[in-house]
Amino acid sequence: MAITLYDLAGAEDDRRFSPFCWRVRMALAHKGLAVDARPWRFTEKDAIAFSGQSKVPVIVDGGKTVFDSWAIAEHLDAAYPEKPLLMATPRERAVTKFVMAWTDTVLHPAIFRIVALDIHDHLHEKDKAYFRKTREERFGTTLEAFVAGRDEKLAALRQCLTPLRTLLSGQPFLCGEAPAYADYVVFGAFQWARAISPARLLAEDDPVAVWRRRLLDAFGGMAGAARGYPA
Amino acid sequence: MAITLYDLAGAEDDRRFSPFCWRVRMALAHKGLAVDARPWRFTEKDAIAFSGQSKVPVIVDGGKTVFDSWAIAEHLDAAYPEKPLLMATPRERAVTKFVMAWTDTVLHPAIFRIVALDIHDHLHEKDKAYFRKTREERFGTTLEAFVAGRDEKLAALRQCLTPLRTLLSGQPFLCGEAPAYADYVVFGAFQWARAISPARLLAEDDPVAVWRRRLLDAFGGMAGAARGYPA
Repeated sequence: MAITLYDLAGAEDDRRFSPFCWRVRMALAHKGLAVDARPWRFTEKDAIAFSGQSKVPVIVDGGKTVFDSWAIAEHLDAAYPEKPLLMATPRERAVTKFVMAWTDTVLHPAIFRIVALDIHDHLHEKDKAYFRKTREERFGTTLEAFVAGRDEKLAALRQCLTPLRTLLSGQPFLCGEAPAYADYVVFGAFQWARAISPARLLAEDDPVAVWRRRLLDAFGGMAGAARGYPA
Repeated sequence: MAITLYDLAGAEDDRRFSPFCWRVRMALAHKGLAVDARPWRFTEKDAIAFSGQSKVPVIVDGGKTVFDSWAIAEHLDAAYPEKPLLMATPRERAVTKFVMAWTDTVLHPAIFRIVALDIHDHLHEKDKAYFRKTREERFGTTLEAFVAGRDEKLAALRQCLTPLRTLLSGQPFLCGEAPAYADYVVFGAFQWARAISPARLLAEDDPVAVWRRRLLDAFGGMAGAARGYPA
């Protein structure tokens, strides 16, 4: 039976733009597990109230509910150890958490400064006021002011990618010769942006762009086929 | 027989301040291997000419010469697989390289902007002109101008540590419950600074400072006993 994923969607059901849900989508593909990825909007708190919290990703796997992308990755390896592992050793998990911390605290904010208004513009009507209010409170300014000066913010993003670029100049994936969970954590950030923003985050010849293309093409082109702007 | 390490030293033989040599020192301690860490100065190119290049760390292990801290780590695991492994799987090595890329391209430059002149001031007299010339050419300014505005640069360093701080708020070491190579890569940067600069890089209650203390105390307090300023 397919695993159910509550997956953040925009105005259209197939515009999926949560970086955290993308981690799960890629993790499920890595393990070859079927998914029923149901569109979910920010304001549909009731639909996931059974999980005991208010954010996606949430999965239902048989009788088990799991939320939080990291917990879901750990669950998938524990529940399906015979499928390709996302992280094979405690130390892989520990060091992958550094990649996740960097993604969450450096990469996501750098992208958000570019795409925050684009997110708003691609939301379902019923989510727009919620998103604007919560984000403007968090950032202490309007979405419009928050994203002003895109060229400068794009330069800052490309600068903050230096460690990733350095790494990917020497190996095809974060995880080495083949992708695994650390790759999906970082890739989720780019799928988020691609789903809702026409901004070209990367120069074509950037090793990060070459790596992104590999993951867009992975698993039969699953991520590349998702609704969004050209990468 | 002890492994010989050519180890960058300052004015005093026991002031060892290369972040890359510290990676090796910690790696050797992790594996429980004895070391003869010989003081070496920037201008003693002849002493390591046998390695075919001009930088430390260089080790001589029996008949084998290995240079570059990463190559040395891989050598130690390959040559001593029965000793605790620095990195146990190809994926651990791959993801650890991200930690290394972050350290080399984000952390080291942030520290260098604070300590560059302190390095100069702690060098052996015969190294001072070489260091000043090569670094001033690289940075296009004097060492004095390069480090001006320490408070601002200290704030920038602490800011760039956010991913590490986030990680270490949830686990004792980068590598999880016990330290391994990813820890030593990052720790080397702090040993470098501590050896030659009185600057207090970290607030006492910073989780990064708590982690650093664990590594200063590891292996019988080896790193903590090294000549330098209070951490």
